[in-house]
Amino acid sequence: MIGIDWGTSSLRAYRLASDGTVLARREVRRGILTIEPGGFPDALQEVAGTWIAEGERRVLLCGMVGSRQGWVEAPYLPCPAGIDEIAAATIPVPFQGAEVRLVPGLTCRDRHAVPEVMRGEETQMIGAAAGLDGTEVTICLPGSHSKWARMERGRVTGFTTHLTGEAFAALAGHTILARMLNPSAPHHARGFARGVARAKQPGGLLHHLFGLRALSLFDEVSEEEAASFLSGLLIGHEVAAALEEGVAPPVILVGAPALTSRYAAALDGFGIPHRAAEPDVAAAGLHMIGERLP
Amino acid sequence: MIGIDWGTSSLRAYRLASDGTVLARREVRRGILTIEPGGFPDALQEVAGTWIAEGERRVLLCGMVGSRQGWVEAPYLPCPAGIDEIAAATIPVPFQGAEVRLVPGLTCRDRHAVPEVMRGEETQMIGAAAGLDGTEVTICLPGSHSKWARMERGRVTGFTTHLTGEAFAALAGHTILARMLNPSAPHHARGFARGVARAKQPGGLLHHLFGLRALSLFDEVSEEEAASFLSGLLIGHEVAAALEEGVAPPVILVGAPALTSRYAAALDGFGIPHRAAEPDVAAAGLHMIGERLP
Repeated sequence: MIGIDWGTSSLRAYRLASDGTVLARREVRRGILTIEPGGFPDALQEVAGTWIAEGERRVLLCGMVGSRQGWVEAPYLPCPAGIDEIAAATIPVPFQGAEVRLVPGLTCRDRHAVPEVMRGEETQMIGAAAGLDGTEVTICLPGSHSKWARMERGRVTGFTTHLTGEAFAALAGHTILARMLNPSAPHHARGFARGVARAKQPGGLLHHLFGLRALSLFDEVSEEEAASFLSGLLIGHEVAAALEEGVAPPVILVGAPALTSRYAAALDGFGIPHRAAEPDVAAAGLHMIGERLP
Repeated sequence: MIGIDWGTSSLRAYRLASDGTVLARREVRRGILTIEPGGFPDALQEVAGTWIAEGERRVLLCGMVGSRQGWVEAPYLPCPAGIDEIAAATIPVPFQGAEVRLVPGLTCRDRHAVPEVMRGEETQMIGAAAGLDGTEVTICLPGSHSKWARMERGRVTGFTTHLTGEAFAALAGHTILARMLNPSAPHHARGFARGVARAKQPGGLLHHLFGLRALSLFDEVSEEEAASFLSGLLIGHEVAAALEEGVAPPVILVGAPALTSRYAAALDGFGIPHRAAEPDVAAAGLHMIGERLP
């Protein structure tokens, strides 16, 4: 089969053997925001046409491709939901030459009835929790919109999203902090650790943000470490909030090492065990859901 | 005497009688960022020249005019500091035709040694706390950089700054929230109250920010109320953090009614008594410090 994690800015395609082995992969900057209206079939043909010509007949898509701005809108599936519910809720997509289906996103409500949504991460989570079906698991997917999910017996029971990555860019680029830091400066481990340590202190995030400015006024934070301090501060506040909601260690971190290593350092700062997920969790999840399609 | 609150973007000048009565006032968009290097004497002449020609001989300046980017840099005075310490720490500014002095800003450290700074607000606080010398007072000055100060027997004993106003602009304008809200929409009381109520719930600010996006995806927050929801959320988080540090009600709110009324509503949401400061607190503070100049 072919599995595709089709997000906002990029597309990752996998050709998968029947045991889930990744036979081939392609990653292209063809996120849904780059696709013209009506252009999805051509884009799929472009990235997976040769595999289809070679005989693949089943394609499973996950991610923002199932959003209102995507190919076909797949309604959010309410939690708790596991592989079986997700496979049963996939929806067919009209396409010539292969049977294409879309994985739905998930939704849940917190105890105050505020909604949550994800698209694509559910597939990565299913893959990341493979083999842990009997246990309670906490999975963290850092990013622009970081996700923390609780899974139990292979089903996502609830999750929270934090606007951490986007908040970093907005605050680093469009407040007085922009004068004292370079958002793309190399990672500075000490600055990051200082930010995490600050997040553990009282006073609140909005106060801690001004404190970074004040530290720089007194030359108590260097230009080299300021961006990492801000990153540590925001990630630290995210981790603190996630811990308050409750986690089941070790927290499984999913994502690119450049980012998950920061979350690993932050979790270390809070004394919480963690481990990295296996690579290619999206491919694993697509395979696992693909095996249970209707 | 002449008192001038000279900030980053605007300048408020007062001609004051010896009992502190405001005889005349001028407000011009001549904040320090609009002044060319070396242009401060001309700007002062421009705004207060006629008063000086009519016989005023003493001018007291407060605000960002005493910063590194201002006329002369006045070192920050450490807290606790009251009128007497502030008056003694004013510094002379060379000017032809009048005796000009600058009020220093204040600094303090929280229990974790992170520094805090203010410039100009100390003068407003002195004015706002006039007549309350024996009591413990909490003063809040909302703004881009909101200040919460504790005063005791007329002295500022400590304070915290929150980047609330700037964070609102950055998050409303430069994250996914920008798609669903109009930062300059009219104030929406219900949306604001919903944001404040959300701030009282667990989950953390970064999670609550994404929740606003999710509410809009499900049409559970209207476009009209979204900006006020965000404002209530941020101000609510600021107030919650300030209350955790401890306040002495009623909190005295200083500033323009359009903004202080939001803080009043947020404090109502937390059940904390508050009252508005008298108008012209900067003029009152300048007068009070002016009476004690060396």
